[in-house]
Amino acid sequence: MDQLRPTSANSIPLTPLTFLERAATVYGDCISIQYNNTTFTWTQTHRRCLQVASSLAGLGIQRGDVVSVLAFNLPAMYELQFSVPMSGAVLNNLNTRLDARTISVMLIHCEAKILFVDTHLSVLAQEAVARFPPGIRRPVVVLITDDVVLGNEETRDKVVDSLTMQPCVGSVNDVDFLTTYEDLVEKGDSEFRWIRPVNEWDPMTINYTSGTTSAPKGVVHSHRAIFIIAMDSLIDWSVPKEPVYLWTLPMFHSNGWSFTWGMATVGGTNICLHKFTAKDVFSAVNRHNVTHMCGAPVVLNMIANSPHARPLKNPVYFLTGGAPPPAAVVLRTESLGFIVSHGYGMTEVAGVVVSCAWKEKWNRLPVAHRASLKARQGVRTLGLTEVNVIDEKSGLGVKHDGLTQGEIVLKGACLMLGYLKDPRATAMCMKKDGWLYTGDVGVIHPDGYLEIKDRSKDVIITGGENVSSVEVESVLYSNPAVHEAAVVARPDKFWGETPCAFVSLMGKASMKELIMFCRDRLPHYMVPKTVVFMEELPKTATGKIQKFTLRDIAKKMVPPKGNSRM
Amino acid sequence: MDQLRPTSANSIPLTPLTFLERAATVYGDCISIQYNNTTFTWTQTHRRCLQVASSLAGLGIQRGDVVSVLAFNLPAMYELQFSVPMSGAVLNNLNTRLDARTISVMLIHCEAKILFVDTHLSVLAQEAVARFPPGIRRPVVVLITDDVVLGNEETRDKVVDSLTMQPCVGSVNDVDFLTTYEDLVEKGDSEFRWIRPVNEWDPMTINYTSGTTSAPKGVVHSHRAIFIIAMDSLIDWSVPKEPVYLWTLPMFHSNGWSFTWGMATVGGTNICLHKFTAKDVFSAVNRHNVTHMCGAPVVLNMIANSPHARPLKNPVYFLTGGAPPPAAVVLRTESLGFIVSHGYGMTEVAGVVVSCAWKEKWNRLPVAHRASLKARQGVRTLGLTEVNVIDEKSGLGVKHDGLTQGEIVLKGACLMLGYLKDPRATAMCMKKDGWLYTGDVGVIHPDGYLEIKDRSKDVIITGGENVSSVEVESVLYSNPAVHEAAVVARPDKFWGETPCAFVSLMGKASMKELIMFCRDRLPHYMVPKTVVFMEELPKTATGKIQKFTLRDIAKKMVPPKGNSRM
Repeated sequence: MDQLRPTSANSIPLTPLTFLERAATVYGDCISIQYNNTTFTWTQTHRRCLQVASSLAGLGIQRGDVVSVLAFNLPAMYELQFSVPMSGAVLNNLNTRLDARTISVMLIHCEAKILFVDTHLSVLAQEAVARFPPGIRRPVVVLITDDVVLGNEETRDKVVDSLTMQPCVGSVNDVDFLTTYEDLVEKGDSEFRWIRPVNEWDPMTINYTSGTTSAPKGVVHSHRAIFIIAMDSLIDWSVPKEPVYLWTLPMFHSNGWSFTWGMATVGGTNICLHKFTAKDVFSAVNRHNVTHMCGAPVVLNMIANSPHARPLKNPVYFLTGGAPPPAAVVLRTESLGFIVSHGYGMTEVAGVVVSCAWKEKWNRLPVAHRASLKARQGVRTLGLTEVNVIDEKSGLGVKHDGLTQGEIVLKGACLMLGYLKDPRATAMCMKKDGWLYTGDVGVIHPDGYLEIKDRSKDVIITGGENVSSVEVESVLYSNPAVHEAAVVARPDKFWGETPCAFVSLMGKASMKELIMFCRDRLPHYMVPKTVVFMEELPKTATGKIQKFTLRDIAKKMVPPKGNSRM
Repeated sequence: MDQLRPTSANSIPLTPLTFLERAATVYGDCISIQYNNTTFTWTQTHRRCLQVASSLAGLGIQRGDVVSVLAFNLPAMYELQFSVPMSGAVLNNLNTRLDARTISVMLIHCEAKILFVDTHLSVLAQEAVARFPPGIRRPVVVLITDDVVLGNEETRDKVVDSLTMQPCVGSVNDVDFLTTYEDLVEKGDSEFRWIRPVNEWDPMTINYTSGTTSAPKGVVHSHRAIFIIAMDSLIDWSVPKEPVYLWTLPMFHSNGWSFTWGMATVGGTNICLHKFTAKDVFSAVNRHNVTHMCGAPVVLNMIANSPHARPLKNPVYFLTGGAPPPAAVVLRTESLGFIVSHGYGMTEVAGVVVSCAWKEKWNRLPVAHRASLKARQGVRTLGLTEVNVIDEKSGLGVKHDGLTQGEIVLKGACLMLGYLKDPRATAMCMKKDGWLYTGDVGVIHPDGYLEIKDRSKDVIITGGENVSSVEVESVLYSNPAVHEAAVVARPDKFWGETPCAFVSLMGKASMKELIMFCRDRLPHYMVPKTVVFMEELPKTATGKIQKFTLRDIAKKMVPPKGNSRM
């Protein structure tokens, strides 16, 4: 038995890039991408990706070079998810909500050779590149001209001229060129033999974390991890053949949770949107018979509370993640005909690795109970080997009692290779005990389902009691007047910390009313002692509420009069 | 980038065995197995598998030992697919249709330490073990008492007594024991920490090929290959959550095309059958609301031609493979409400690796055209990296013209590790050029879909022209009087060979009528010169028509009078 070793026939590296050629064979005539009036078939998408990949290779891009992309959910953005790695390069999707300084730091850190830029973001990109210190090589910028918006070539040239940036003259590995994205398509070779990874552990993507609590780090994923998560996510969400997928999730956000590549496996239609409102979502859903979409709870919230919300003609599967969806939001969205699933992932894993696998029998429970079950993160997906919640002191798994908190740890094939050029951070996250430490605090319920209680730094310790800010927020969200809520620690001489709520309203409510509302529903110590009303809560680039900003505000507040003992 | 290497957190070996514990968490209360009046839930199946695995380990089974199973599709057979590898052993599913001599050869070849035997097959097993030459260590035999059939314990003991074989006294690695399968369950530890593979390339299964053309060889598959094919097959067949899967495909047949493990991932209900007729199939489909089933075209044929056939209340997805399904059979089965998919695999790959991915637009074609498209093998699944058809002389891929024949070759993660103790056969099959050579002859159509034209040895060369026996058979099957048909070469002094048809009828037809029927539909040279009527065609243990037997008969026929020039 020991003589049997992997051979060249069975050990060819796993990579999701093989999905594209298959899509062209099976779904060649089907629509791959729909964006305003632009439509591509899978045959066209396959060909265009090969053309861009060949152009990149022709420009001198070599295996392992980094190519960055700063774009909204345009067709080109979708294509680049394939074409960049098909040229042998490592794909770096940048968050469009970042500022020039941060983008500049990232581009320098990953040594990007080329930067693809959505024309709508060209000023931002130019500012980022202008910040490069002398002597540091700048990436060559390629403009993605949004033809749909810009109209014909003449208009396009005019707009390009009017931008502060020219279509780009530059050199990659000493090859000079002047080009736009569509020029790379046009000049490319659709018969190009794309560059396969030598090893399935070869890096394929690098994403910078925009964590609420720490500095950005470059998370590198391998071809292998992405191949497995892409398959895994399709099974976990039971995605059928030929779905119509609406891109409300930014593709830069953890690479669209792997559904960028996943859609090629099932011949899905990618409905691309530039920027969107709730009205745009409802309109796209109806016009294209959308079947699937993803997004953070803020998108769910936006949909649920929109004046344009109306019952759907056909059910739409909505996968949410990034933060626990408040029960009230799930309820409102589901009443419109969305079927909400809830998954958990992070940049350090290649997509959704824990999900709230739904049980048929739960459909018979009262709606509120159903929504609270759905707000749990759930169980590991097939691609993850193990998930556990570990007690900080003992290092052992916590009791499955739904009460004992610990840090969530992961193990499996969808985990990152590590942080780029940061062995220390990598070693702190992926420890020698074989676990990836998420920094998130959770419990395991008696039925084996995981529930996040907080990001490590979001635990409020008041009078020696741990308060989970998520729990308090859930209660606030269930108040019909509340639009958004975030709870952080406010320093307090007596209690150490007290819960401080930041709230934006969509109805009327006073501070006193909200506090009474919480008192009726929470242990005394968990009730916010302070409520701050804001028109809108500050958000990170990925739509998470900026708790660190709120924490700063809370810290600088005038100390409570007297002591706040209640 | 080069500093990023796999770590213990992300490189934990892939194995499908992790699916079971997850099924117990997510689908704990759902029915895992239904067999006559026996029902298990996923919680029970998980526990029972751990118990058997712990008993095996307790008996001295060590990592890499082989444990063989000779059983029909009983609940124990399903459980052993998990419990044997969970004990660290390599699982060897034996074909129940083999004779004692062949089984004996296989058991000796793989050095099986334990042989699990269905009581219904105990005589066969005993004969096989009795054939062991002196000095060769015999496997310890564990009886799987079919409690459902045997009733209560008293009856069971009586039946066991009446069998020529006693419940087993034996020793594994010098541990003596006396036991039945249920004893292993009862005495096992449900908290057992199952034995994980050290490396994902570790062997997990060994299956002996029952090829129509060559001696049995021991095909070894790794944990990795089975993990990938199990996920792949679920996506390829769009299997939803909680399907009801009827086991008409023997689990020993290429490990049930991986759906043994696959059902755990989606919380399916496994409807087990001992032996079955078409009537049993229709009855089980109705009683259990079956949604999915698999089987060779002979099963499809049996269903289509049964007097018990009646339209289904709900559609049933039927995945067929092992041989191209005759168009006429597909048509008849689909008219009853089955939705037939067609896949291609072989023992040397871990399941279905090429499948006839269906296109929506084909549903608008005339039924006969639709059926002929469905008879094509199709395109690679996601888990296979490449498939090609190679010209024997040049070694290059053939034209995609649907005409030029060549050998089908495969490359990808679902391929076997190799043949046990047979490096020469392994090297002949998996060549240095990185391809696995299937021995099957096929063409690629202009749309990229593969179609098998013949097993290499089934090509009939007549007057210098290649005749594909499958093509002639397809025409014969389309005659309403024909039940089964097989075409082989008959030696001929003038033509070299001529096509000779063996036919079993379900209506009335004369030799002349069948030949005229073929003349209207085929080039002259392809029309059978001889037709032999048989009551039933001889089959291999896996239900394939025994072409080598027919070829022998054809060879021994009296030479045709005069010359057969037409």
